[in-house]
Amino acid sequence: MLEQLRAELGEVLVTDPVALDALRADKSGQRSDGPPLALVEAREVAHVQAALRWAHAHDVPVVPRGAGTGLAGGAIGRSGELVVSTARMTRVLEISADDELAVVEAGLVNAALNAALAPHGLWYAPDPASRDISTIGGNIATNAGGLMCVKYGVTREAVLGLAVVLADGRLLRLGRRTVKGVTGYDLTALFIGSEGTLGVVVEATLRLRRLDRGEVVTLSAAFPDVAAAAAAAAAITAAGIRPAALELLDASALEAIGAHLGLDLGARAAQLLVQTDGAAAAVEAAAVLAILGAHGGAAERAADADEGERLFAVRRAFHPAMERLGTVLIEDVAVPRSALPDMFAAIGRIEREHGIRIPTVAHAGDGNLHPNFVITAHDGSGEVGVPDEVWAAADDLFRECLRLGGTLTGEHGVGLLKRRWLRDELGDDAVELQRGIKAVFDPTGILNPGKVF
Amino acid sequence: MLEQLRAELGEVLVTDPVALDALRADKSGQRSDGPPLALVEAREVAHVQAALRWAHAHDVPVVPRGAGTGLAGGAIGRSGELVVSTARMTRVLEISADDELAVVEAGLVNAALNAALAPHGLWYAPDPASRDISTIGGNIATNAGGLMCVKYGVTREAVLGLAVVLADGRLLRLGRRTVKGVTGYDLTALFIGSEGTLGVVVEATLRLRRLDRGEVVTLSAAFPDVAAAAAAAAAITAAGIRPAALELLDASALEAIGAHLGLDLGARAAQLLVQTDGAAAAVEAAAVLAILGAHGGAAERAADADEGERLFAVRRAFHPAMERLGTVLIEDVAVPRSALPDMFAAIGRIEREHGIRIPTVAHAGDGNLHPNFVITAHDGSGEVGVPDEVWAAADDLFRECLRLGGTLTGEHGVGLLKRRWLRDELGDDAVELQRGIKAVFDPTGILNPGKVF
Repeated sequence: MLEQLRAELGEVLVTDPVALDALRADKSGQRSDGPPLALVEAREVAHVQAALRWAHAHDVPVVPRGAGTGLAGGAIGRSGELVVSTARMTRVLEISADDELAVVEAGLVNAALNAALAPHGLWYAPDPASRDISTIGGNIATNAGGLMCVKYGVTREAVLGLAVVLADGRLLRLGRRTVKGVTGYDLTALFIGSEGTLGVVVEATLRLRRLDRGEVVTLSAAFPDVAAAAAAAAAITAAGIRPAALELLDASALEAIGAHLGLDLGARAAQLLVQTDGAAAAVEAAAVLAILGAHGGAAERAADADEGERLFAVRRAFHPAMERLGTVLIEDVAVPRSALPDMFAAIGRIEREHGIRIPTVAHAGDGNLHPNFVITAHDGSGEVGVPDEVWAAADDLFRECLRLGGTLTGEHGVGLLKRRWLRDELGDDAVELQRGIKAVFDPTGILNPGKVF
Repeated sequence: MLEQLRAELGEVLVTDPVALDALRADKSGQRSDGPPLALVEAREVAHVQAALRWAHAHDVPVVPRGAGTGLAGGAIGRSGELVVSTARMTRVLEISADDELAVVEAGLVNAALNAALAPHGLWYAPDPASRDISTIGGNIATNAGGLMCVKYGVTREAVLGLAVVLADGRLLRLGRRTVKGVTGYDLTALFIGSEGTLGVVVEATLRLRRLDRGEVVTLSAAFPDVAAAAAAAAAITAAGIRPAALELLDASALEAIGAHLGLDLGARAAQLLVQTDGAAAAVEAAAVLAILGAHGGAAERAADADEGERLFAVRRAFHPAMERLGTVLIEDVAVPRSALPDMFAAIGRIEREHGIRIPTVAHAGDGNLHPNFVITAHDGSGEVGVPDEVWAAADDLFRECLRLGGTLTGEHGVGLLKRRWLRDELGDDAVELQRGIKAVFDPTGILNPGKVF
């Protein structure tokens, strides 16, 4: 059966066992039951179309995949599935400075796009922590945010149009090149965050910004406890200040980062990192400094951009520091910004009651927290599943988050990891409507089955 | 049959012939074949639910309606239809300054919302020209933009969540109170711009901004011809400047406004109005002045905010001026910003070739043009349809717009007026998928039939 596809695709179809084994995991710590049937390493749109036509004809489940850096298991390949990767489709098809847009293939890495844009004085704003390794297609699949989306918007606000391959192999163009438009339903927005369940994104028309951010001021403040830091963060946004980045690190996170970087971060209970930019950077920074001080923060202002970068390097080292600790379950809840102190209090309670260490960082400016449940010290023996007691603690976390008016996932997606809580947030009616929409795009259910729903 | 609904709704159900006759029209100049069956003037969500339950049980078509200010015929009631109006559901349910959000009923008028927000120092940014008369629900139905969306975003960027009544009367809550989230498909975005075809929006959770815009600088420039003005507008956005408003008026529009306001606007061939705000207002205004001059514009800077308001009052008088001219077909195409000069050249050609006067204003900062096809002088005799020769000219316009990479409608919607061009823009596959989505929400097809599709 596969030979038919091989005849059409040649070396684009990969069945090497080592390559297939790698597709069983992503960065979520999950690992599937067994290797997928095969991998299509598409170089062009026609390869994706051929793969989907074949899968549709033979009723083979398809897992769309980019760089495999997802944190919710959405791109994990299982036995009997065909993984269709766009990771080798990395071309920049167009850059228009006049219209502030770019057209790119889905496999282009986020940071590579920005490297290509820089000579044109342009910038693609969504900056997930994975920006050096994750693809634009993957960013679209999960509606990725990042450190600067608090001011510059998430992926949904940065995508004008898409080209997608449907379940039966047809190519469909959605959206537009204009900044406004309301001709029919917004299918582009529907695809963003759909985690490969509606079609395979092969190309995107992206809305760009100018690279010049003007003056950039970076502030850092140590706090005596995480409650004070969370209150300060909520007070900054409540004051109407819109920093370019506003990051919070708790004591556990700081300790792990200090160990990883070999830095003495002291016995800091919590730290806030704030960046302001543009014409109002200095005025906003002064207002932020006053708020930090009023909440008991010991604040310092970076002398220059290099020192600012070094301060943020501490934050960017969080994920590597966690990997060094061993296996972690990386969570991604979001709450209304005013509920940030309550959410941190709940995390403290869950740590104590469940006896689990939960280092947490937060994109505090938009109420998005990443609590990392430390499962085990890494012993080099390979993968570790998520034990029941960790899921019990995560369940406690999700319920607190929903109670505070929050959401299960701010920017990582549902994937495999959060399916069981989907109805708790959305309700039965909304889930049934969503399944109805999926059936419109994928009537035979071959697209990423078992993910999200 | 209707008596059953009357028993349930009492005076909320209106069958007065004068009231029903008014529902045959909106602000599009279209008028339906006959008055609808009845009007439900809902005061609360339960009224909308009762109306939909009844309509669903009796297979009666439902037309959701707000203030009836639509420009595409989307809320026009026809014979045999039940109009469900949310115009009397005008409560502000919650204002949270800390979380920069408000929860409001759908019938609240846009300007009334901003009046309620002002004492809290908050602002809802989407500002359609109809802001004094159009409702938040209507703004959501058409994804309304306005003068300032070039910098502050359209309706889709300002809505966090919705409550909607489904075709069978069930109430469904969509979206969230958090600024980020990716749990399941974005049904909120799907409803925005859906023109009453998926459900009845009864409540919205809106994302707010701070009212304080900082310094506001207003510039005005007269140009020797519209091509120069369009080129200047494209040059301003291409320079990376993001004005708070950037409006273009052509000679015909200026002449009509001058007559309406009793102002001597001279024999201006075109005018650009530019507003910059915030900490960079002065720097950006200086850069804009240089670009205006380089393109042959005779520019002036308003001495103060009052003079700035007077300059913009000229632009805001456009629609009243058009109403004074008689019946007009108000169009709403959008093109990539760099194509603005080409689009204005096409409008000039269409005016000459079709012998029709087409006064045009443009939200030039986002490439959205409103060409107004003047049909006839108003003789007081009532409604006038759109003659075939005007549709032929409009058809020419739409084809030019699509050829330039544009879209049929930037912010008014498809409604009745643009159905016939829908497939030209979207293609057959996308239209079929959209109809499939509609069927998921509205399996028996009672929601606003004949609109959009």
